[in-house]
Amino acid sequence: LRSLLHIPEDFTLVFTSSATEVWERLTQSCVEHQSLHLVNGSFSAKFHEIATQLGRKAHAVEAPHGACVRPDALPTGLHPELVAITYNETSTGASQPQEDYAAIRAKYPEAILAVDIVSAAPVVTLDYSLIDTFYFSVQKGFGLPAGLGVWAFNTRCIQKAEQMRAKGLSIGSYHSLLSLAKQAEQYQTPCTPNVLGIYLLAKVAGDMLEKGMEMITRETKYKAAVLYQAMENSPWVRPFVENQAYRSLTTLVGKTQVPSEALIKKISEKGLILGSGYGPYKKEHIRMANFPTHSKEHIEMLADLLENKTLL
Amino acid sequence: LRSLLHIPEDFTLVFTSSATEVWERLTQSCVEHQSLHLVNGSFSAKFHEIATQLGRKAHAVEAPHGACVRPDALPTGLHPELVAITYNETSTGASQPQEDYAAIRAKYPEAILAVDIVSAAPVVTLDYSLIDTFYFSVQKGFGLPAGLGVWAFNTRCIQKAEQMRAKGLSIGSYHSLLSLAKQAEQYQTPCTPNVLGIYLLAKVAGDMLEKGMEMITRETKYKAAVLYQAMENSPWVRPFVENQAYRSLTTLVGKTQVPSEALIKKISEKGLILGSGYGPYKKEHIRMANFPTHSKEHIEMLADLLENKTLL
Repeated sequence: LRSLLHIPEDFTLVFTSSATEVWERLTQSCVEHQSLHLVNGSFSAKFHEIATQLGRKAHAVEAPHGACVRPDALPTGLHPELVAITYNETSTGASQPQEDYAAIRAKYPEAILAVDIVSAAPVVTLDYSLIDTFYFSVQKGFGLPAGLGVWAFNTRCIQKAEQMRAKGLSIGSYHSLLSLAKQAEQYQTPCTPNVLGIYLLAKVAGDMLEKGMEMITRETKYKAAVLYQAMENSPWVRPFVENQAYRSLTTLVGKTQVPSEALIKKISEKGLILGSGYGPYKKEHIRMANFPTHSKEHIEMLADLLENKTLL
Repeated sequence: LRSLLHIPEDFTLVFTSSATEVWERLTQSCVEHQSLHLVNGSFSAKFHEIATQLGRKAHAVEAPHGACVRPDALPTGLHPELVAITYNETSTGASQPQEDYAAIRAKYPEAILAVDIVSAAPVVTLDYSLIDTFYFSVQKGFGLPAGLGVWAFNTRCIQKAEQMRAKGLSIGSYHSLLSLAKQAEQYQTPCTPNVLGIYLLAKVAGDMLEKGMEMITRETKYKAAVLYQAMENSPWVRPFVENQAYRSLTTLVGKTQVPSEALIKKISEKGLILGSGYGPYKKEHIRMANFPTHSKEHIEMLADLLENKTLL
């Protein structure tokens, strides 16, 4: 993983049972008072909700679904200990542009910058000098069975947790950031983890390394372009994310002109399974995964179907 | 699982990622001030440690390793909200006798009685009217890959968590007892769980149901008797748990007369893998699993080796 994602030595890599768990552990171990969340869909909202449930003052700045929070919309005069960015908001298909990170960092230089790369990893372009922690789960881009989260954090995160512990605050227990980091020094875990998942992740990461991230990224961009092009030309579906700069490469969301169920059913007859919309968008969106496992041939077949004027 | 273990309808069944996680969730959701832990080895001690790390006043009453805490050794005048019993202390091979549960219940009628059945399940004899919650992980008696915990709790636990929440206390977040219980009503989970583990658990539980718990329990008792008998007769190893009433049926620990490594190595040459001692006992104990998956034939072969005077 370290080689595949070019993760600097300054970052510690640990395992949790999900990315959801990381939302909790990060809050417990690195937020004493307040956090700030860029919310533009269900998953970014859930991180905000968890921080609130843990008794922190969690601020949310919201963007319309299908868009991203603009850095200039973020409040000044606030001193959050953590700022949470969602690289790829899986529920809407919007992706926060890399250019925004530096502006957010400049606005909150003291804060830990956390980036959720669920459903983007391993196809991510991250400037690690601008962020302090990132995390993902393995059932999306790595195509593995669910039940394993991967969390990376730098020494700023460790220092923050140490400061909180030194004050006598509870930073969690067996899966606190410090407990995980201490065991990771010896390639150990604080409790018996999903060993099979870890083993399989190493195998898949090894395969991806052999193919090379450059090739995987190039193919992902090509497949995404094919699908967005098909949606632009389709009588059945339009890209939900209107601003091209916000369009996700790996989880594409379409707003359907017909009940999404009809489109999903028709396309399933051809052997391709689309996702329905997330939450309130169940009936009016389709969601398409564009992960390394999805072949160019299948994506092209899907594009042809979406453009077919006599499909329904 | 409900059929296999005859779990009453009053108990809700949910999934976590480990039994370790249950120690934390149970504390967060059901202990406002203080808990009481019967400690007789490394695992019961870890639950006590977690409750302490979460800022609770966690009382521990200790018994020597290889023994169990006697109910009459428990303090009077204490009002713990939770009493934690370890059915089977995996690190020492000591099992708390069933007869003790009623006495503990009588001493702390207001407390939630929690029973750790890790490494005992499914071979457990539990009077569910005496306890409020129990939990286990699947990599021991169910023989499955690690990374899944099973947690059952009754309405007393739910009411306690609701009382704490009504007071405005944080009872955790996505995996709080109430969040888990709410999703379980619809056979759902608060986050994407170890789906493969859940699927495999259902298959293994189905196989066990077909064989029948009566037969599995009878075989387990027979195999345990064979192994304890062999240790009594062995020149190499003695049962670590001296009091027969405390001897675990499923995780047997022997105190070796020679460095345990020598015995483990010799027996591994015959194709049987013994565990070394846990923690400080690494070099002076062997640990033998007696789970449903271990055949009578293999256990008998191991017994013969332990009794063999010319083995080493």
